[in-house]
Order: sequence, then C-alpha cells, then structure tokens
Amino acid sequence: MKLGCCYYPEQWDETMWAQDARLMGEVGIDIVRIGEFAWSFMEPSPGDYGWEWLDKAIDILGDAGLKIILGTPTATPPKWLVDLYPEILAFDEQGRGRGFGSRRHYCFSSKVYRREAARIVKQMAQRYGDNPHLIGWQTDNEYGCHDTVRSYSQNAKTAFREWLSDRYETIDALNQAWGTSFWSQLYQNFDEIDLPNLTVTEANPSHQLDFFRFSSDQVVSFNRMQTDILRQASPDKDIYHNFMGHFTQFDHFEVSKDIDVASWDSYPLGFLDQENYRDEDKHRFMRQGHPDFAGFHHDLYRACGTMRGQKNARFAVMEQQPGPVNWAPNNPAPLPGMARLWGHEGRAHGAEMVSYFRWRQAPFAQENLHAGLRRHDNSPAQAFEEVRQLASEIKENPVCPASFQEATKTALVFSYETQWMSQIKPQGRMWDYMQLILDWYGTARSLGLNVDIVPEGGSLDKYDLVLVPSLLHITGQAIKAFESTDAHLVFGPRCGMFTHNMHLPLSLGPDGLQALLPLKVIHSESLPSFHREVGYFEGEEIYGYGWLDHVETRLKPLVSNGAGKGLVFQEENVSLFTTIPDTLFLRKLIDAIAQKIGLETHNLPSGLRVRRGEKTVYGFNYNDGEVSMPSSVVKEGGDYLIGEARLKACGVSLFKK
Amino acid sequence: MKLGCCYYPEQWDETMWAQDARLMGEVGIDIVRIGEFAWSFMEPSPGDYGWEWLDKAIDILGDAGLKIILGTPTATPPKWLVDLYPEILAFDEQGRGRGFGSRRHYCFSSKVYRREAARIVKQMAQRYGDNPHLIGWQTDNEYGCHDTVRSYSQNAKTAFREWLSDRYETIDALNQAWGTSFWSQLYQNFDEIDLPNLTVTEANPSHQLDFFRFSSDQVVSFNRMQTDILRQASPDKDIYHNFMGHFTQFDHFEVSKDIDVASWDSYPLGFLDQENYRDEDKHRFMRQGHPDFAGFHHDLYRACGTMRGQKNARFAVMEQQPGPVNWAPNNPAPLPGMARLWGHEGRAHGAEMVSYFRWRQAPFAQENLHAGLRRHDNSPAQAFEEVRQLASEIKENPVCPASFQEATKTALVFSYETQWMSQIKPQGRMWDYMQLILDWYGTARSLGLNVDIVPEGGSLDKYDLVLVPSLLHITGQAIKAFESTDAHLVFGPRCGMFTHNMHLPLSLGPDGLQALLPLKVIHSESLPSFHREVGYFEGEEIYGYGWLDHVETRLKPLVSNGAGKGLVFQEENVSLFTTIPDTLFLRKLIDAIAQKIGLETHNLPSGLRVRRGEKTVYGFNYNDGEVSMPSSVVKEGGDYLIGEARLKACGVSLFKK
Amino acid sequence: MKLGCCYYPEQWDETMWAQDARLMGEVGIDIVRIGEFAWSFMEPSPGDYGWEWLDKAIDILGDAGLKIILGTPTATPPKWLVDLYPEILAFDEQGRGRGFGSRRHYCFSSKVYRREAARIVKQMAQRYGDNPHLIGWQTDNEYGCHDTVRSYSQNAKTAFREWLSDRYETIDALNQAWGTSFWSQLYQNFDEIDLPNLTVTEANPSHQLDFFRFSSDQVVSFNRMQTDILRQASPDKDIYHNFMGHFTQFDHFEVSKDIDVASWDSYPLGFLDQENYRDEDKHRFMRQGHPDFAGFHHDLYRACGTMRGQKNARFAVMEQQPGPVNWAPNNPAPLPGMARLWGHEGRAHGAEMVSYFRWRQAPFAQENLHAGLRRHDNSPAQAFEEVRQLASEIKENPVCPASFQEATKTALVFSYETQWMSQIKPQGRMWDYMQLILDWYGTARSLGLNVDIVPEGGSLDKYDLVLVPSLLHITGQAIKAFESTDAHLVFGPRCGMFTHNMHLPLSLGPDGLQALLPLKVIHSESLPSFHREVGYFEGEEIYGYGWLDHVETRLKPLVSNGAGKGLVFQEENVSLFTTIPDTLFLRKLIDAIAQKIGLETHNLPSGLRVRRGEKTVYGFNYNDGEVSMPSSVVKEGGDYLIGEARLKACGVSLFKK
Repeated sequence: MKLGCCYYPEQWDETMWAQDARLMGEVGIDIVRIGEFAWSFMEPSPGDYGWEWLDKAIDILGDAGLKIILGTPTATPPKWLVDLYPEILAFDEQGRGRGFGSRRHYCFSSKVYRREAARIVKQMAQRYGDNPHLIGWQTDNEYGCHDTVRSYSQNAKTAFREWLSDRYETIDALNQAWGTSFWSQLYQNFDEIDLPNLTVTEANPSHQLDFFRFSSDQVVSFNRMQTDILRQASPDKDIYHNFMGHFTQFDHFEVSKDIDVASWDSYPLGFLDQENYRDEDKHRFMRQGHPDFAGFHHDLYRACGTMRGQKNARFAVMEQQPGPVNWAPNNPAPLPGMARLWGHEGRAHGAEMVSYFRWRQAPFAQENLHAGLRRHDNSPAQAFEEVRQLASEIKENPVCPASFQEATKTALVFSYETQWMSQIKPQGRMWDYMQLILDWYGTARSLGLNVDIVPEGGSLDKYDLVLVPSLLHITGQAIKAFESTDAHLVFGPRCGMFTHNMHLPLSLGPDGLQALLPLKVIHSESLPSFHREVGYFEGEEIYGYGWLDHVETRLKPLVSNGAGKGLVFQEENVSLFTTIPDTLFLRKLIDAIAQKIGLETHNLPSGLRVRRGEKTVYGFNYNDGEVSMPSSVVKEGGDYLIGEARLKACGVSLFKK
Repeated sequence: MKLGCCYYPEQWDETMWAQDARLMGEVGIDIVRIGEFAWSFMEPSPGDYGWEWLDKAIDILGDAGLKIILGTPTATPPKWLVDLYPEILAFDEQGRGRGFGSRRHYCFSSKVYRREAARIVKQMAQRYGDNPHLIGWQTDNEYGCHDTVRSYSQNAKTAFREWLSDRYETIDALNQAWGTSFWSQLYQNFDEIDLPNLTVTEANPSHQLDFFRFSSDQVVSFNRMQTDILRQASPDKDIYHNFMGHFTQFDHFEVSKDIDVASWDSYPLGFLDQENYRDEDKHRFMRQGHPDFAGFHHDLYRACGTMRGQKNARFAVMEQQPGPVNWAPNNPAPLPGMARLWGHEGRAHGAEMVSYFRWRQAPFAQENLHAGLRRHDNSPAQAFEEVRQLASEIKENPVCPASFQEATKTALVFSYETQWMSQIKPQGRMWDYMQLILDWYGTARSLGLNVDIVPEGGSLDKYDLVLVPSLLHITGQAIKAFESTDAHLVFGPRCGMFTHNMHLPLSLGPDGLQALLPLKVIHSESLPSFHREVGYFEGEEIYGYGWLDHVETRLKPLVSNGAGKGLVFQEENVSLFTTIPDTLFLRKLIDAIAQKIGLETHNLPSGLRVRRGEKTVYGFNYNDGEVSMPSSVVKEGGDYLIGEARLKACGVSLFKK
Repeated sequence: MKLGCCYYPEQWDETMWAQDARLMGEVGIDIVRIGEFAWSFMEPSPGDYGWEWLDKAIDILGDAGLKIILGTPTATPPKWLVDLYPEILAFDEQGRGRGFGSRRHYCFSSKVYRREAARIVKQMAQRYGDNPHLIGWQTDNEYGCHDTVRSYSQNAKTAFREWLSDRYETIDALNQAWGTSFWSQLYQNFDEIDLPNLTVTEANPSHQLDFFRFSSDQVVSFNRMQTDILRQASPDKDIYHNFMGHFTQFDHFEVSKDIDVASWDSYPLGFLDQENYRDEDKHRFMRQGHPDFAGFHHDLYRACGTMRGQKNARFAVMEQQPGPVNWAPNNPAPLPGMARLWGHEGRAHGAEMVSYFRWRQAPFAQENLHAGLRRHDNSPAQAFEEVRQLASEIKENPVCPASFQEATKTALVFSYETQWMSQIKPQGRMWDYMQLILDWYGTARSLGLNVDIVPEGGSLDKYDLVLVPSLLHITGQAIKAFESTDAHLVFGPRCGMFTHNMHLPLSLGPDGLQALLPLKVIHSESLPSFHREVGYFEGEEIYGYGWLDHVETRLKPLVSNGAGKGLVFQEENVSLFTTIPDTLFLRKLIDAIAQKIGLETHNLPSGLRVRRGEKTVYGFNYNDGEVSMPSSVVKEGGDYLIGEARLKACGVSLFKK
C-alpha cells in the first residue's frame, strides 16, 4: 500500500514547494494529489490559460520522487464563468439559485457547463496526459457534496423530459408506469412533466424515483464525459474519483464503471458527530470514530473497485482525516494513534493507497480550522509522526491483500435504489435503510466476520452467509443470484414490497422470494419509536421495532412475538425477519445461523475489530483503553508482527497465524 | 344507517367493475362514492369531454343495486388546465407557487379557476343530474387539505382588497378596525393593502384575522358556486362535502349552510400519530385511535348537519379508515374489530352513512400503502369481513337516532373564530384552543355524558350543562344564548378578552360575561411549560397551567392557588376558570357541578366510551383488553342486543335499558 | 435620576392628552418620549405634512411641565412611501423582500430611503429644533430589531462592493485578505463580488465577516446622517438612540460615537423567556427576570455612553418593562415590586433616566397584550403605584453616581467583532460567546463585584481585575491595553486564534498574548454537549466543557484534567483557561485570584445583587422570598436609607457605609 497526501501549491508561495516535496518523501509519502480546486489559477480569465505554475509544481514534486494524481477542477468553476453563463448554476428544492462563493455551484444538466468543463479537462489532458510524474487523474471532487446531485433548474427540467422520453418512448407508457390515473395526473406529452418539487403535498413516488434515477444518471454521464476525454488523451493513467461517506444520492456502482480506482474520503470523527449514530457510540468513540465507519466504506468502495471487471478490486482512500476537521457540528481531535490505525485499517481492507488530507493546514478561508499533517506555520502536527511510523511498518511487514479476500465468506447486499425508495416512501419515522445496513454490517463485524459488500444482483457464489437487511424491490438478476447460491440467506423486513416503479407487486411480496420461502405479506405496519415487538429466542427476551410485516404462510415462526405473530421465519437456507431486529436480537440470530452452517465467529470485545486473512490477522482497537485479542482468534504462540495480543488504546496488531 | 365505500373505476380495468359491484352488494354496502379525482378522464383535453367510461361505471354500479354519490373533480385540475392558465395556482406563505403533481393545486380566489370549475360541474350536473342511480353529489374533496385554504397569490390579494372594501366601505373604517395608528400603518385606500405574509415581524392581528375570515369566505363562496349549479340542474339530489379531522382553517358551519349532509373523513390512527395527543395516549391507543377522536368529530359535524335548518341533523362519514394509512408519520394497523367498532360508533352518534375508504387498495401512486377493504390483488383485507358483520348487526338491531339526541343534556360551545384568534395571538406556547376543546370534550365523555357541539351563538336552551373551554371574543348572539339558558355554564380562561376585531374591550373582560359573573380580568399571564399553579379542591391537590387571568371581584374563589389567587370562581349557575385546568382538576369540577345540578355521571373505566339513548345504550371499548360496563350504566338485567357487559378488546355492546 | 415614559398621542383622542400629562407629572414622571412611529401622521401623503397634532401634543405635555424626547419616525416608513419606492425594502437571507405591514421594512443601503429619511428628519429638526419643551431627539427606533441589520438586497450588494473597494483599493488586496486561492474563489474585480447568502455551502469566513462589518457600518452611517441633520438644526438638544438587549448585529460602540446618551430598552422577563438562559434560571426567575440581565446591559451601555469622550458616562433606559409583554414565547407578569426594583437598579448603575414603556396599554394592533403603566381603560396598572413610590424614594435619597464608578475595580472586555467571528466560525455547537460573556459577568457579580464593560482596546489602567471571556482576534490596541495595566488578567479559551481577517496567525496563538504568557496553542478541539473535561482545583472536582485548547508551554498548569492536560495556566498577573469553565469552576478561580490581589469579594446569597459605591451600597433581591444582606457587605450599624438588611421578595435596600 502506498501513502499519499493532498497538496495545494497554489495556496503557498512557490519557494516552499521544494521543501514540502522533500519532507513528503522523507516521511514516507509516495503520491500527492493536486489541482482539483485550481481552475481560476489555470484559466484566470476566459481562454487565458496559465499553466506555468502547475508545470513547475509538477516538476518540483515529481523531481522529488513523488507520483502525482491530478484533479480536474470542475467542482469550482471560476466567478467569471458563472457571470458569463449564469445558467450553469444549480437550483435547490425550494427553487432558489445556488450561487458562487463556496463550491459545487453547477448543475449537472447544464449543457453549457458540460461544454466548458470538457474544454478545461481537454486542455489539461493534452498538456499533462503523458507527463511521466503523473500516475492518475481525479475527476472533479466529491460528486454530490452539499446535496448537489439533484438540481431543480430549468436545465434539469429539460433534461429530465428528454430522459423520460428516451426511457418510456410513449406518454402512455409513462402514465402506466407512474399510475397517473390516481389524482388526475394523466399526462398528454412529455413536455407537460415538471420536476417533483414545490408540489402541494408529496409528488407521485414513481415520479420522484425517476427523478432520483435521472439525477444519478446525470452524474454518471458528467463523469463519463470527463473520463472519455482523459482516456483518449492520457490512455496510460489511472482515473480516480473520490467518493464520500454516508452518501447515496447517486449510484456509485454505475459511476465506478468509468473509473479505474474507486477512492473515498474518510473522516471518522466528523461523520460520527454529524450522522445519526447512537448517543452511546457518539459519546464513547468521540475521539476515535465509530469502529465500523471506515470498515464499511472500505468494503463498499472495494466493491465499486471491481466495476470495470478487474479481477482484483482497486480502491483507495483519497482523503484521510489526520486531526480535527472544521465542518461537523462538533470537532474533537482524534486520540493519538488513530491516524496510524486508520492507515493500517485501510490496508487490511485492501486499499492500494491511503492519502491524508491535507499536507498543511490552510491559514485562511472555509477550512482553516481543518487540520493537516503540518500546521499552518509548517510545524509538524500530531499525525505527522504517526504517518512516518505507518510508512515504516508497512514497508517492514508486507501482507497479501488477496488473502483477506479469500478468507471472506460473508456478503452484505446493498442497493442504492432501495435507499431512494426508502427515502421516498419511508412509511414510518423509524425506517432508515442506511441505519439497517450499518447495523447489520456492524453486527457481522462484531462477530469477527470479514464482510464483502455486494451490489444487488452481484454474484453470491463464493459466500457461506448472505445478509440482506432489506431490498424494497428485488431485481430479476438479484433473484437469480439468491437462487443460485448455496449460502444461507438472511433477509430483513420489507423485502420485495415494490416493483421496479414502486407499484405493489401482484404477488403481495416478498416479490421474487416466494420460491425460496413460502410466505406472503398480507399487510405491513410501521411502528412508532416507543413501540417494541417483544419475543423470545433461545430463552432470552429479544425485540424488534419500527416495522412489522404480517404474513400468511404454512411455516411455523422461528421467533414470535407475545401474540404469536412471527418475527423470524426460516426454511432450509433462508431466514427472514418481519421486523427490524434490535442489534442484540440480530447478533443472536446471525450467530446461531453461523454455528449451523459452520462459519467461525468470535466474541470480540466491544470496540475491537479484526480483519482476518488466510495467513495474517489484523486487529484494531477503537477503545480509549486496552483490550485483549480473544484466544479464539489468536492461538497460543501467534507470531505478532505489529503490536501484541493485548492491544493498547487505539492500538493495532498484526500477527501471522 | 347505510354503509358505503369509495371507488375509483378509472383506476381499474373495466372488466373488474361488475364483479366489484356485486361484491359490494354482497358484503352489505349500499352506497358508492366515485368521480372526485377524475377530471383528466372526464375531459382529457380542453373541451374534449369523455363521459362514456363514467356512464358505463354508473350503469354497472347502479344496476347492481348500489346508490351513487358523484364527486365534482375540482380538487385536481388536469395538467393541461394548469399549463393553459398558470394563474390558477395557489401561492404559499413564503411566496412560492404551489405546482401540479399532487392535488389541491388551485387558488380559491382565481376567477379563471372558478369559471373552469363551474364549467365542468355544469357539464356533470347536466349529464347526471337526474340519473336514477345517483343519490347525491360531493363537492370537490376535503377543502383545505394540505394547508390550502390560505393562498398568497396575486389573485388572493386582489380579492382580499375587494372583500375589505365591501366590508368596511371606507378606508377610515378599516384604519379604525385595525388600529393602524400603531406603527404608522395608516392606509389611504384599499389598493394599498397587502396580504399579511412576508412582513418583517408579525403583521397586525386584525389584518391577519380579516385575512383568515376572507380565506374562509372564499371556500364558502367557491362551494356555493358549485352547489348553486348542482341545485339548479339536479334539484332532487343531496349535496355532501367531506370535511376533515382537526381542521379549522375555514368555518365549517358556514360551508354547511349550502350542503345537505355534512360528512367527514375519519382516520383515527393517522390522526393519533400525527396530531398533538399526549404521549401516553399515543402509546396506549396506537392501534385503536384516541377514544374521543371519532366521537368529537361526529358530534361536531352533526352540528354542521343542522345548518340548513333541518330538524334532524344530517351527517355522515364519507371516508372511514379500514386499515393502515400511508400519510401519518407512523402507520400501524388497527386492531381486529376497530373497523367494525368505528362503524357502530358513527351510528350511535347519528351518522346516516359510514363509507369506507377505499374499496380496493391502489397498487400505484401516492397512496399505494393505504389499505382498502380489498387488497390490491383483490383478496379481502382485514376490514372486509368486519364490514360484513357490521352490516348484518345494523340490519338486525335497529336503533332510533333521535333517542340519543334527546338524552343529550351537555353542550360544548365551539368557535372557529376563537381558533383563528388563538393562532394569531397565542400569547404563550401552551395556549392551544383545540387541545382545550378536546380535553373538555374528553373529560365530559369519560364521565359518561353525551355531548352536543354547539356553534357559538347557537341555542343552549335544551341543556343542563354548558361547557365553554374558551371564547376569545363573545358575540352578542352568544351572550344572549348564555343569558337565556338555565344550564350551568362553565367557562375556561381568556373568555371575552377581545372584541370582534381583536381589540381589547373597554370592560377589560370577560367581555359580555360580567352580567353573569361579577368579575373583571385586570391582567393575564401566559405561563411556561414548566410552571404549575397549584391549589386544593375537595381535599386534593389540583393544578392549572399555561394561563392565568388575574381578576378583581367581590366573589370568593371556589378554588385558589397557594397564594390565594382564584383559579375557579362560581356564582349561581356560572363557573369560570382563570387557568387551564389539568384534566383531573377539570373532571373533578365538572363532576361536582353535575352532582349539584342532578346530571347523571358515570365513572367509566379508562378507554371505555358510552353513547346513551333514551332506550338503548351503546358501549365502545377502545382498550386492547377487556373491560366491564359499570353497573351504574347497565342495571342488572339489561338486555344486550350486541355484545355483553364484559366488553372484549375493541368490543362493542348495545343494550336496551 | 429622572423618570420617563413612552407616549403615543396619535393613538388616543386628543381630549385625553391634558389629563394624561397631568397624571404623568403627578406620579413623578419628568420626561416623555413621543413620535417615533408617527410618520404617517406627520406626512399623510407625499409632501403633505401635518404637524398640527404634534405641535399641540408637545404644547400640552410641555405646559404640564414635562420634558420631551422626540423620535424620528424612520423605523416605520408609510405605505405610500413603500409603494412609491419599492426599492427601499430590505431582503432577507433567503432572498425574499421584507414587506410592509409591521415595522423596520427598509434597507439601510437604499440611497432613496436615506434621502427620504433625511427629508423627514430635516423637516422635524427645523420645526422643533429649538422648542423649549424638547430636551432631546431619539434617532429611529431599535436599530436592527427583527434581524434587520443585514439586508440581502440589490442596494446592499452595490453598497457592499463600494465599501470593499474603499477598504481594499485593489482586488489583489481583497484576494489576499480573503484567501481566495482556496476553492478557486479568485476575483478579478469588485463587481464580481456577491453577498454571502444563498451559497451552496458556507461562504468564505472573511467574506462573511466583511459583510457583517459593512452591515454594521451602514447602521452607523444611517444614524450619522440623522445626527448630522439634528446637530445642525437643533444644536442644543441631546441625541439618544434606544439600543436593545442581547443584540450584537452592529457595533454599538461605533453608533454611540454619534449620540449623546446611550439608552436601551429593558425587558427582563421577555428576554429570560426568549433567550438561551439555563432552564433552572428560567424556572426560578420566571416573574423577576435574570438577576444579571439588567445589570449587564446597564454596564454595557454605560460604556457606550462614554464614546463621545465625555468624562462621565451618559446612559439611560428608554423603555422599561412595567408588566407582561406580548412578544416572548411565554409572557408572565413581573412580581409586585419588580418595576420599582428595576428603576432603582438603573439608578445604581448610573442611568440618568429610566423611562417606562408605555404610558397606557394600546387596545389594538400588534402590541395590545403589552402592559403599560395604565391599562387600556385608563385604570392604573400594577406598576403605576410602584413608579410613584420609586419617584419619591429617589427624591428623598440622593446618591452620587460617580461614587459607584470609583468603587469599580473589575473590568470585563467585550468585543462585537468576536461575537461576529464566533457566529461565523463557532466550530462547535457549544461555542456561544454571549453565553460566555454573561456567565463571566454573572460570576463576578455574584461575588459582589461592580463590573465595568470595556470595549476591546479600551484603557484598563484603573482596574485590579480584568476578565476576558474570549477575544477571537486581539487588536494591537487591545494588546497595548493588556500590557500596560497592572491588573490581573484572566483570559478564556480561543483568545487570539484569528487575525483581523480570520486567518490563523503565524504565532499559532493566543496571538498577541504570548509576551504576557509563554504558551502556544498547537491545536484546539470543540467538544460535544455530553463531554466534560474533569479536573481538580483546591481539592474539589471542577470541569470545563465545549472547547479545549492544547498548548505547548514551559508552564506547569494551575489546573489540569485527569490526563494532565492544562485547563488553567497562570504566570504573574495573567491567567488563561484552555476550556470553557463551568460557572462553579470559574467562580472558584476568580475568587482565588481576587484573594491573591486583595480584591474584596462577598459570598452573596443566590439571587441577591449589590452595587457598591464609595459611601452607599444598593442591594437588589431577585428572589421571590426574603434574603439577608451578608454582614461582610453591611457592617453592624449600617444606616439603611431604603429597606433593611433582611430584603423582602423583590426588595431593594440602600444604605450608607
């Protein structure tokens, strides 16, 4: 695994560049990402390009032995471009233009902006496409950040009508697909169709879903416009994009079909504070981040890293948090050791690079309270020496990424469309698909299991256990994958409740699974926060919450509530929850299934995570105190390469089996 | 009482219509409501009417023995109409147009829309006005749903100026009425007057109140435009409108003057979850609905059903919840038995029809997760057999609606204007007039009392006990009604604190009541949520909250707080609270008054409600477990027609005295 | 000290004026403020002035012996003016025009409005400038009320560009100052610069800060436009403006340079309920107001009252709450005695006038539920007799304001710029500069200390103890003031973390203090609400919260957390917190320092405040029960002029030492 950092030569006096480059090399950094916010330096006024500074920066960095990933600057069009073409701006759901003054102030559907973006990308590709210091390109930056996937502009409306016309061909087909006989919504032609915002009450769910799909497709095609140019003018370089955490507004699997390396930006503390984690976890892991945050996203984007068909996944961390950030509601500092731990953890999950954001803290502008590896006065920040240690540990202890893959027997099926359908029709306040995904993922990981994230419809042949927290619609391809695997399949509630267009299936549901499990959902309830469905499993009280599917079936429930309603049904290699299991309930059930199918689990101490390879095992202690690796994981006499069986606070261990 | 259902032939293949009609009849349904969202089927393009499908649907339903209520489709103008006349759209308080894509996307003040609505209504009235299968019309659908009474459009502004000019005649009169000498608000002419939105801080309360009144009047005149057409072209049919629960943006008594049958849409579970009920009630009645939700609205709309001067009130339930709905924050399923219970309860309160929404669940569009009597695959849903049972029980056990009326000796005075004034000038976070109304209503009902809702100013002559939770302004007619009754009058806080235009009365208040009770409110306090005014009544601690009127009076308080301030004053047949009584306090006081005046009360078990007729008594058990009817209600040897003295969970009993 | 009241002759029949004037004099009122909302009476239509009513009102009031403060009416331009020049309206941050219908519906940057405002002010100044009854002018009313300092209009954008151009001269200077090399924000010229609203994510902090400064300057220049006219045409009269509580959107010290008497509007109950006070204080002081609310603002605006260079501060209370108000979320009534107490307290803090708002409650319009000294029916309200008592007590017990000043040895440094920077970059949810200011102020006051508020950079020479809760940027002048005083300086966290433009200083910070205290902040954390940094001080557990500065220093901490991180550092006469101290912790430390430097403190009972002069001491009991003045404050044999050592609920005492 390589180490990297993000660097902004345009923000510093060029007299500093050479020393910076030298220090990067010295500390163990191999790769430097530059350029992604520098359009107004590359083209200070229309058509007046200024490449000299960038030529020089690349030369200096490259001459110091660093490899370069160059970002296309399309996330931040300059002010002159906005003033020349005000139509490029995005509009928010409330109908307000989203102006210049921060970033991502463009609409993916603006043809003028696509033309201008293509122009600057082509200029860059032609100039640097075969530069020997360059190893790759990053397209744009964090597509969708600040809620920018969905724009409600006139450009978006026009493009949406075209997209619908391409998809449905006739307006009758659209009327059928959307069920417009409801509430007198019949359309006569595609030009009557508006965007689904500013309606009196909720818009038609099929209309909303198509708008979500369209918006995702606009990101895909915008990115492809760039990758087409880059592949032509710079065929030998890898293409990256840097995805984000907890972000689902576009289908990352689709965008990943056009990039070589799926990278992402990992900010464990910022996301713990900002997102909907449990209060006890926010409290306990305040300065460490949630133990499953990085792991989950590594595993998700590793799946993205196979989308071009390569045998071995290619993924990376493009931005790794090194200290306090500036953008979460509260911004504590990582405990000493965490910057190193996150680097090792990326490696254990198969990253080919972990790159820290950023080399040096900026003294000005929006992110001046965001830490770097160096402070703004150029003194070393806390993470600096941790990176040096990490670099040396990596060099001294080679591991085989493929061996971790081979040891992975558990898959978790994930679907962006289910997330969109969940947001459009939550039907209850407690329904949160991402929460479900993270809870199921974390439960498996707390049992010591390696997990692969598999996109719905992906092959499940290599697994013993397949977790499907929910799939509101199940595609034909997904049904085939479920039917052709020998793994034990565990389904959550609401599976197959919708067709492709969010109609109800005539089968009643779980549509597509009834051949696997003979039951039918006759009606469903969403349950308020205060309500629990209580039952017993293996002699202990368990509970479900938030949702309850009522079924007709010849099966006896494996677990029931007090009134005898089934909470879990099981037949052969298929299990299904009719409710959202509390994590203890879920853990019990998964553990029981694992035992049944002979899958090895471990009772890990809370806050400890392991990543098990064929020959080596990595351990990561997210606690602020010591814990011991259970002897079931490390047999007596295990050979510790890094750390030991007793892991220090924020400690890492690596041992040979 | 008849049973009905809501049906959308335009959403189903016409090959299904005949079987649907047959099944409706078989299960005991007499009446079917159709058509209210079908404009784009009735007139697919401008002036191009398509009635054939509707002719056929009416024929098929009618031929199966069903009677039809036909809805005018004006709640959902088609897209072509919106595109032809964009000026028909409503605008929200933030100044944004409210677009097509759901429903109710029109402004009551658009003259163009009134013309177009009149046109389609006239077409329907001419075609179906004397159709023998038709028994009635429903105008539009749920006026005001989704906050659509008040529109802030240019059309509304123009119409408001005309309304003001008609009302005040001279601008000086308006300046006086609004007190525009405050903050330099003097107007020179009516064309200077804006709508009261988007002001820097709160707009003038008299200005707001007149806008609320104007907006209510616009609903009245829009409805009257339709009823005028219908009465002329279809003189023999009843006219209905379907009101909603917890909705007060227009004066339902006024709209009811133009309709024959006041009907409403009863969704006990959706409203329990959505509205501001107490947490303990939300928890306890999650799958039953609040025990007073249906009763209160039955009694309210029964009062509406007398507004055309008929001797016997005419009211109905146009839409009755049969299973989970889709639109509340959480949507659990009614317990088995509730769909039947609600039907009986409507009957006990005097409904001439209870009609279930909807016949069959739609598989598509906004409400596809809203249950019907049949599932979307046409299998029977939970409520289906309950309706069959209900139909047979009704047929076998006739009751006399008038006998329940005659047995009603308690009135609760309700005022839409007080609700509007309360919203404009709550003066404290705890002031919630509707909460007060529901608490007082529920307290009386929990004592086993039948309650009539009486509009302010309505006759009180037949009652023994009159509850007035509050009346911020007391009209001259209301004063006369209070002065001419022999009933015991119980007033809550804030009574008579405003004049008609929300000025303070020179009497200081309670303006209009001082002849009945010799006291004067010298100042008032609104109290934060954490504060209680604690006192003692009949040896027990009681408390008030939220409000405190300080009075000058020669009376000694009946109940005081610790500092000696009066919380209740009483003289002869008048009692008055100076604070909002906690429900236990209120119950104690009402019970004490009832004993004093010889009104029979009962200590009903929690969750049990009774409706007492002269000869029969209905009991409704909202609990999810059994309860017994107290022996004070049913003497030994009562003759049970339905159920028994021990009511099952969600059970109903009917017995002869 | 004089007593005053606010009066609106235009709202009452002129037959009442003479009796009102007589009663004012009788009760002890000397001064009456009129006219500030009367533009539409002064100029009912464009250019058509109507002064007769005002001439008459002034004559009647003056003839009754009252002195008059006349308000310019620019806070409420008439409707005809708004219709004639719609461009005068302000726009809110969401881009919506802020319309007519309440007040303050103008944009400070509208040149047209400045012209019109100048015109009416000049007319008034010419007509009444030398009227013998007049003693002063009030400019406008409550600048900024209802969030009106910052307008996002086209006028504001144009004026902001001019302001920037004047300030920076070259666009390169602006680019440097704002750090626009970040996120490609480089500007080519000033006309490219937008207002910092409606950006995709947060705007550049330097951009925001300059917009806050610009907006503050617009208030200063708008006010100066008026004072220039008034000083020329009415040179002998004082000029007032009435500031508000808890309001910081403009720099009050700057506005104060143009007025003679800094006055403010004191509503202790409204602000307790509305602002972010602790729940326990809201509960306990519900009917008394927070014990430090009035004191703090008196001391703040007394500092404003020195800005024209006068030796003795000139400040006043222009509006004093007399009873319940109408505008807070909840509006209880002051306990009997509070209206008197607040009057005495103003006097103890040096006010030259306390004027009650308002003479008589209005029966109409937005504030009809706002109490006055007289009820709307002209009967005396609760405060009426309290004012009479106050007037007589003042007359009988003269005190020397200067003696309280001389006894004041504690300063608290306050900075509007730090408040703006805090709002722009809170960096954590718990960071609230105003909360810090109030906590530190209240802690000093609870120790019996008189406190002067000193603007950052003001002289600190006369003090023994200087409290600096925070200063995000420390100006050169402030550094000099710190370095030249012998007082003990106590600094809170985040001091000197920014340069003038919110860059990070190269010194790392606390920038400017490192010569006083040898330490360097190497990084900082913001801490979530649930986290405490626990340590020990003088044997007791103490804690900090919300923020933690990590430092490099040769100093040993005076107080540390459990991990040894310093929470307080001290060397010689400088102490510095690295965290936000809990108020108990803060109190302990200040008390320890006071003992060290020989400053007399007192352990006052909770809710008791004292103001100590050289020869007299005032005591104010904010409790609803009795408390005793500690014997350390009043030695045996103190001579009580008002009250006694045992203070009644809401009681006042005044004694000679």
